[in-house]
Parts: sequence; structure tokens; C-alpha cells
Amino acid sequence: MQVTRAADYAVRAMVHLSSLPEGARASLAELADAVEVPAAFLSKVLQQLAKGGLVTSHRGKRGGFELAREVTSVSLLDILRVMGNEPALNPCLTASGCDRSPSCAAHTVWLEAQERMMEVLASASLEHLARITRARRRIAAGS
Amino acid sequence: MQVTRAADYAVRAMVHLSSLPEGARASLAELADAVEVPAAFLSKVLQQLAKGGLVTSHRGKRGGFELAREVTSVSLLDILRVMGNEPALNPCLTASGCDRSPSCAAHTVWLEAQERMMEVLASASLEHLARITRARRRIAAGS
Repeated sequence: MQVTRAADYAVRAMVHLSSLPEGARASLAELADAVEVPAAFLSKVLQQLAKGGLVTSHRGKRGGFELAREVTSVSLLDILRVMGNEPALNPCLTASGCDRSPSCAAHTVWLEAQERMMEVLASASLEHLARITRARRRIAAGS
Repeated sequence: MQVTRAADYAVRAMVHLSSLPEGARASLAELADAVEVPAAFLSKVLQQLAKGGLVTSHRGKRGGFELAREVTSVSLLDILRVMGNEPALNPCLTASGCDRSPSCAAHTVWLEAQERMMEVLASASLEHLARITRARRRIAAGS
């Protein structure tokens, strides 16, 4: 399973929220602008992130979306999982599996390749991504 | 892009050919049996492998399919490439790319995850896979 559009937008939204100053919230319009996706679609993505415990939404004048967890405790893989989009290199690696796997030499390689990929996704925290985002903004601003 | 059925069958066929004794050839029927796929479908897969320079086919009484290259010089990634199925974790990593990538913090992580996965696929040679296959056959035979 490849990263879906919805999961990709979820990652972008989470990265934007993580790069905001402490305690700041973002409106749907601000997030849609940052993520570069129509607000109606992003609204559904944010609902799924809220359901999965990754964001909270607040109503009212000072309302908006904010992260529900510490930036150090959320990885890129966590976001994909909440979006139901854990990548699988080969269908034989999904829960339904493959009955050839005990005798299949390639299965061990698919599995190792998948694990190396997962390690990178699991070790990329929102804190790490927010740091990159802030650094790029500084470079873009010419400071 | 996930590993397709055709590419998965191509890998299975190549692994089977690589596990044969030196100079041995396999018929389409033998390969179809080993790969566990209908011969008609496998025939198309073998055509693509032949076109890509990974197998050669021979006609006649002692005909059949054999590897066109040394088992040490063909990796699992080579087979996927010949089958037009190089995996991409996220569509933003394909040739068409993504215009957000210079500012996107997640892009660097997708890329790193993809590269770790590719390294495993590129380092798994047919020689390695044939060795695993032979070892499993010995275990299955109880020797």
C-alpha cells in the first residue's frame, strides 16, 4: 500500500501544527492554505486525526486545531497508522499474508526491505519535522 | 507503487531458475508449477524478463528457460525494474515529482525511507536467494 493522498495531507497538516508557536491553534482555512488542499477534503482528514487522538479541535473565537500529543511522541508512522495507511511493499506482507512465505526466499527480503523503511518512518518524530520546517522557513526568509 | 503480481511472479521464477543445477533449463510447465501461477500468465512475465535481458529461452527437446546473467549480478531490484515496477513509497518520489518538495519536511523522510528499502532490494542477489531456497529445501527434505 502506497501513501494515500489523505495520509499525505494528514502528515502535512500535522507538520504545520507542530511548527506553530507553543499554544497556538490553526483554523481550517489556515491549514488548508498551508497543506495546499481544499478545506472540505482537509476537514475529513482532520476528523480522522481527531478520532485517532492526534489533534484536538476547539470552537469559538480562539478556536482551531492543535496537536493532542507532544511533538516528541508522534512519528510519521503513527500518522499513517491513524489514517489506516501503513505501507506494505508487497501484498504478501499484509495481515492476510501469503501461504508460500515459509518456503519463499524472496519473502525474507521483502520483509527486511519493509522493516528498514518502517524504521525510518517510526524514527521521524514531529519534533524532527518541525525543526526542518523552521530551518527552511528561515532560509526562505533570507535570515 | 507496490510490487505487482506480475513482478512478484517474475521474482519467484527467477529464484527458481537460480536454484537449478548449473546448465539446467526449466520448461514453462515446471516454472508455472514452481511459481504457482497459470502458465499463460507466466508466459507473458517470462517474455518481459527475456526482453529485459534476464532470461533466455531455448526451443527443442532440451529447450526451456535459463538465466541470461550470472546469479551474482542480478538483484531483486533489477527484476522489479525490468518488470517496470520500481516501488515508490509516496507518489511524490516518482519521476513526475512534487513541486512542494523543496519546502516539505516530510519529503526528506519519505526519500530516506524509500532509499533504505531500495538498498535492501539492491543488495539481495539471486545468488543469495538461491542459497536460501536450497537451504529450505534441505530442511523440508529432512536432511
